[in-house]
Amino acid sequence: MMAVFELKPIGVVHSQFKSREEIANSNKDENVGTIEISSDYANGLDDIDGFSHIIIICWMHKSTYHSLKVRPIYHPEKLRGIFATRHPDRPNPIAITVLELLERKENILKVKGIDLLDGTPVLDIKPYTRRDRKDNAEFGWLSEKKYP
Amino acid sequence: MMAVFELKPIGVVHSQFKSREEIANSNKDENVGTIEISSDYANGLDDIDGFSHIIIICWMHKSTYHSLKVRPIYHPEKLRGIFATRHPDRPNPIAITVLELLERKENILKVKGIDLLDGTPVLDIKPYTRRDRKDNAEFGWLSEKKYP
Repeated sequence: MMAVFELKPIGVVHSQFKSREEIANSNKDENVGTIEISSDYANGLDDIDGFSHIIIICWMHKSTYHSLKVRPIYHPEKLRGIFATRHPDRPNPIAITVLELLERKENILKVKGIDLLDGTPVLDIKPYTRRDRKDNAEFGWLSEKKYP
Repeated sequence: MMAVFELKPIGVVHSQFKSREEIANSNKDENVGTIEISSDYANGLDDIDGFSHIIIICWMHKSTYHSLKVRPIYHPEKLRGIFATRHPDRPNPIAITVLELLERKENILKVKGIDLLDGTPVLDIKPYTRRDRKDNAEFGWLSEKKYP
């Protein structure tokens, strides 16, 4: 497991957020922003209309990995294993977020529910499918918490 | 957007699958496999017990990106924009799959629903939270299809 894999950005996030604190203090479900895909990749967005939700995969460019145990941003009372949290400071700083797709115009996706910093590089877009929706999921240490 | 980002594997998938065809011909919801996390990262799995589902992020090492338009594996009748499909041959070959967590023992996760090739490098593990479950989702060109 000595390999190193290389990624290239395919686009960039435009949001109102300049800091993690601004994201934390917002109503994340309501935030509208845009995902700008490089024009080289725009044709890859064809057929995305009609999906109410899309998965945005990003490179968290402000992430700094420091420890396998972190204090979750909304629930800092206890250290948790990093892989049992969505904390951004991870060994590989990949973000996944499911956003509502409001509109696609050529290489621009207008989305709702954004919780990403302005300027975040985008790595991939995937449609949200039935296999991503788990109706009977249980949420471990997060079950009793208001904010996931 | 000239940057290149580097990832390192944190673990590896053990599954029964040696080819994409074997995955396609299986009942994906029932397949049991394991995710082996490098012992260096094992403590990062603490607190993951209790989550019924986890998100596995992988590097699709057999992926070969060739085009922004692809024929989906289960629905090859029409070319679709790559970002409106889950086809593995993508600009950045990152896989996301939501699996049922059956058991964690130290650095080994036993999972159900696996649809990943044996030997696939693992990049990240995240808990599946309420924000990942979209009850009123619509599935675009996939809505009429049996297999997402």
